[in-house]
Amino acid sequence: MASPPPSSRQDHVFQAPTGTRDFYPAELNRLRYIQDAWRRTSISHGFDEIDGPTFEHLDLYTVKSGEGIVSELFSFERFGGEKKFALRPEFTPTLARMYASKAGSLPKPTKWFWMQNCFRAERPQRGRLREFCQWNCDIIGDDSAAADVEVLACCIGMFQALGLRSTDVRVRVNDRGVVAGILEQSGVKAERVGEALSLLDRRAKIDAPEFAKIATAIGLDVKRYDGALAAYVDVAPSYKRLRDDLNSAGIGDWVAWDFGIVRGLAYYTGMVFEVHEASSAERAIAGGGRYDKLIEMFGGPPTPAVGFGMGDVVLSLVLQDKGLMPSDDEIAGRLGLRPDVFVISNGTPEADAAVVPTLAGLRREGLHARRSYKSSKNIGKLLGDATKARARFALIIESGTAGQIKDLDENTQVKIELAHVAELLRSEK
Amino acid sequence: MASPPPSSRQDHVFQAPTGTRDFYPAELNRLRYIQDAWRRTSISHGFDEIDGPTFEHLDLYTVKSGEGIVSELFSFERFGGEKKFALRPEFTPTLARMYASKAGSLPKPTKWFWMQNCFRAERPQRGRLREFCQWNCDIIGDDSAAADVEVLACCIGMFQALGLRSTDVRVRVNDRGVVAGILEQSGVKAERVGEALSLLDRRAKIDAPEFAKIATAIGLDVKRYDGALAAYVDVAPSYKRLRDDLNSAGIGDWVAWDFGIVRGLAYYTGMVFEVHEASSAERAIAGGGRYDKLIEMFGGPPTPAVGFGMGDVVLSLVLQDKGLMPSDDEIAGRLGLRPDVFVISNGTPEADAAVVPTLAGLRREGLHARRSYKSSKNIGKLLGDATKARARFALIIESGTAGQIKDLDENTQVKIELAHVAELLRSEK
Repeated sequence: MASPPPSSRQDHVFQAPTGTRDFYPAELNRLRYIQDAWRRTSISHGFDEIDGPTFEHLDLYTVKSGEGIVSELFSFERFGGEKKFALRPEFTPTLARMYASKAGSLPKPTKWFWMQNCFRAERPQRGRLREFCQWNCDIIGDDSAAADVEVLACCIGMFQALGLRSTDVRVRVNDRGVVAGILEQSGVKAERVGEALSLLDRRAKIDAPEFAKIATAIGLDVKRYDGALAAYVDVAPSYKRLRDDLNSAGIGDWVAWDFGIVRGLAYYTGMVFEVHEASSAERAIAGGGRYDKLIEMFGGPPTPAVGFGMGDVVLSLVLQDKGLMPSDDEIAGRLGLRPDVFVISNGTPEADAAVVPTLAGLRREGLHARRSYKSSKNIGKLLGDATKARARFALIIESGTAGQIKDLDENTQVKIELAHVAELLRSEK
Repeated sequence: MASPPPSSRQDHVFQAPTGTRDFYPAELNRLRYIQDAWRRTSISHGFDEIDGPTFEHLDLYTVKSGEGIVSELFSFERFGGEKKFALRPEFTPTLARMYASKAGSLPKPTKWFWMQNCFRAERPQRGRLREFCQWNCDIIGDDSAAADVEVLACCIGMFQALGLRSTDVRVRVNDRGVVAGILEQSGVKAERVGEALSLLDRRAKIDAPEFAKIATAIGLDVKRYDGALAAYVDVAPSYKRLRDDLNSAGIGDWVAWDFGIVRGLAYYTGMVFEVHEASSAERAIAGGGRYDKLIEMFGGPPTPAVGFGMGDVVLSLVLQDKGLMPSDDEIAGRLGLRPDVFVISNGTPEADAAVVPTLAGLRREGLHARRSYKSSKNIGKLLGDATKARARFALIIESGTAGQIKDLDENTQVKIELAHVAELLRSEK
């Protein structure tokens, strides 16, 4: 017999690591349904797909976010003195590295999308896992407001494709440059504006005395800042222009200005946005904005850029809450997973012998052909299996060369030569 | 202004970790071309897709392969006393864990495919990277030779879909049970058969004296073993039955029996196979076999299983060598990435103003619509960009409501209302 395994049968059952997911076929199809909408939307909006390594050198992440980010990363090293690595917590540093290293030969603007998994070494919570799937769209090399609007239009176009309406989700937009200007007018020194923005990002999450204490330390006079904001809203020229542009793209009703949105990541420089379920019941569905200094920080030429990221976890909770996640059967149909034919033998030896060659021939033609693995010769039962598999047709082989083909949608049945089955199925596809 | 980054511009350019890849659009499309063949073949052969975590608890890998495997893994731990994790070097342990934990409710047989990245902490070599994409197909819960043949047929069906012929690649099949029996007949004790199989797997890679030395230590009389093999080939009943079954599936000419194929992984129990480029110029393209004890080892009921894995790296080298990797344009066409329309303004203010709403409307209809970002008003130049983008049509907007639509394949042009463009493009899709 073959080699025995190094250790024998286990007493405990192995489990997936906390915060990660096992995707059995039905669950994976629901993820694929979301990814399919992401992919189609990206392509229709003229983005090209890219990909990079699942792990990067650790310093790719610390250079941008400081050493503080290390505790949120899964980091590791290899023997023999290689540099430390970390699983990507987001794709933007890789994108900036990739753009920087080929900036000279890339089109202006470059429009890239990306769709893979990211990793966070935090404690898992509702809407927040340790491994999740993320979609990014970025326009690099275009500093125009039109690029901001194009990115927003792509994000909103995806919501529309999944059946969400402007009353279901709210896109809240702000401009970090505007907020930074008001902070400086309110007495915050230029070198502390970054800290002030980071504090404002956490304003809703920390209690008022704590907020006031940190604000004082930073030199932020909160009353003066809130007053200056209120005065600004009345004029808000950025907002007016953005609203006109969004209306022109037909998505004005999806977007509201919100001075509270400053985004946690340090690299944003201008327009920023977040998307929330309308009642704010869940974490942010998506977030993005302008990051005009980042490509340069990774060794590229000064290059404006704007983009967003969206994870699958919160989006899928929102779709389920709104009753917008289709049934398993509907999803399988939309993903093109419905079998073209389910092959059955009528139980005679020559029909039995024809099953494998017939299946092989149909599959070679690219047709999705399934069969029963049961030893049952009860054709009624086997037809039941064909229906359960949601096959379009059942082929009941009656001899080495012929059989009956049954249209399972129309409930009609005709005699057919086995040699003509592929042709018929292709014409029905 | 916005917050300054924690550290300013870098002097060095960041690079992807050794043995990983950056995929710019054209490179990614070549990978997607292979993955598309993998996916279509899996589906047409009746496999359902699953996925699991990118990293698992380290002991999921050591239980099966022993502690020796740790040096080949990227392993890491999280603060706070959690168990150690490792990036998956292969998917089979995850599949066994997933099957074991739901064995009672899964169909018999269960047919699963999987297609994601794997990681190996080895020094990169030609055909062997630290991160690569892997395709697996497995039939679980069926101990029949028909299942072995179905798995082989799926693997070979994928080669056929990519244009490879039986003269391009060789599928070499063996039976570990047969070899184990001959080893025992040649004097190897049952408890050392595993070591002997592992030695035979390395036979072509180590020099003869070294091989002889280890063989003696294991109690393997090499002359006696080779003699017994030669005698066995004359009868080889397993081979004869397999050959008949493969002929019945129309793939007999792809497969040859080879007693040298025993596979490195300890978990194989019966039929094993490897696929090589015909001249054996590259590493194995794919490998697989029967692993009838593995599900049980992961806490499931005794369950026979058979499957294979194939990486993208060697396969893509072989396709390139044989001239079977299509051009970038062909691949983009096959992947459905060709733009339906390239939108151009004729330069008048009202046409300029209509570009964004027109694009937005077409994209909302799911059409792939691109535009020029150039400030040029030279329509000839812009049409050149449309051709370069391989767009099917160019739309030259002439007013707020109408324009010319130019068929770039047929080189014909007609006037059209903007409101009717989507309808025309859909009919041409």
